[in-house]
Amino acid sequence: MEVWNDRNALLAQVRAQMNEKRYQHTLGVAETARLLALQYGADPKKAEMAGYLHDYCKCWPIEKMREVLLRHDLPPELLAGEKELWHAFAGAIVIQTELGVTDIEILQAVRYHTTGRVGMSLLEKVVCVADYIEPNRNYPGVDTIRELAKEDLDTALAVALGGTIQFLIEKKQSVYPLTLLAYNDLVSRKGREGGFNG
Amino acid sequence: MEVWNDRNALLAQVRAQMNEKRYQHTLGVAETARLLALQYGADPKKAEMAGYLHDYCKCWPIEKMREVLLRHDLPPELLAGEKELWHAFAGAIVIQTELGVTDIEILQAVRYHTTGRVGMSLLEKVVCVADYIEPNRNYPGVDTIRELAKEDLDTALAVALGGTIQFLIEKKQSVYPLTLLAYNDLVSRKGREGGFNG
Repeated sequence: MEVWNDRNALLAQVRAQMNEKRYQHTLGVAETARLLALQYGADPKKAEMAGYLHDYCKCWPIEKMREVLLRHDLPPELLAGEKELWHAFAGAIVIQTELGVTDIEILQAVRYHTTGRVGMSLLEKVVCVADYIEPNRNYPGVDTIRELAKEDLDTALAVALGGTIQFLIEKKQSVYPLTLLAYNDLVSRKGREGGFNG
Repeated sequence: MEVWNDRNALLAQVRAQMNEKRYQHTLGVAETARLLALQYGADPKKAEMAGYLHDYCKCWPIEKMREVLLRHDLPPELLAGEKELWHAFAGAIVIQTELGVTDIEILQAVRYHTTGRVGMSLLEKVVCVADYIEPNRNYPGVDTIRELAKEDLDTALAVALGGTIQFLIEKKQSVYPLTLLAYNDLVSRKGREGGFNG
């Protein structure tokens, strides 16, 4: 589809889905993901594109997201669970069906950018970490994750996901199981590699 | 089996499996579980018995626990995972096969006293909370859980399990998924009831 092959048209399309703050975040994730990709050997062009697209549905009304999810074969626990996670799964569907994105790596990076999952690809990790540390981000602990991301992508991601789990528990909210499984997966891989830094 | 019907014989058997500190903890859990059972309407006799038996294998050598688990049909992720959890699952097997405990409620209370699980019975909750708050326990936050247990067993358990998850993440250790699912289950039930205290 033409939008997908024209960066300016794509950005205009992305811009139309969200408010200015979310758009600045989007640009920050794209640039951070591009740099992380260069650092860790992922495809920088795909990382940048996934960054532009990762929050495509974030500002959509909840009912519009629900319609997208209901039209597709999504895990039932997703629809029953936290609505905060819907935009990632809805986003992966919408950029495929409405923008014509066919690259499975980019689609998966968008789909799992919030929850993570077991066995994340390098591109998925890059986009997920970029989402945590892009320059507009400001939350307790963000600088630790920024520092870790300079040294070890997996450690940065494990600490970031772990922090999210801790934060949700602090707020007495439920935690999407995929996120815990993603965290455990990173910790056990680190264990097998002989250490977990950070 | 006779030991099971003779409290003194049972306690002697329990005492022989563990060191003095663990035995004092065991007595503390049994008495705390009995009181919680009286408060919340569980069977106080079963709660006390489950308390005596909950850490039956806790001080066993890891290889002895592994043998028990290998002889039975345990979930593979258990054997691959944290050895800290083995004593609960091994304990439920051993008290059934060696002490002749047949009461399924007691067996399940022992089996799930460390991890928790989705849909815990009242007795399971009582033993799990008793394990967190018996008088010998001393860790940051224990008094909060003691206070919550006076008001609402589910809230006390959710905060206790949540605290364990946070603690494990703080130590960069993996978290047994059952524990997160148990936590989520309590949080979502509280949500449907209209509130989560504590």
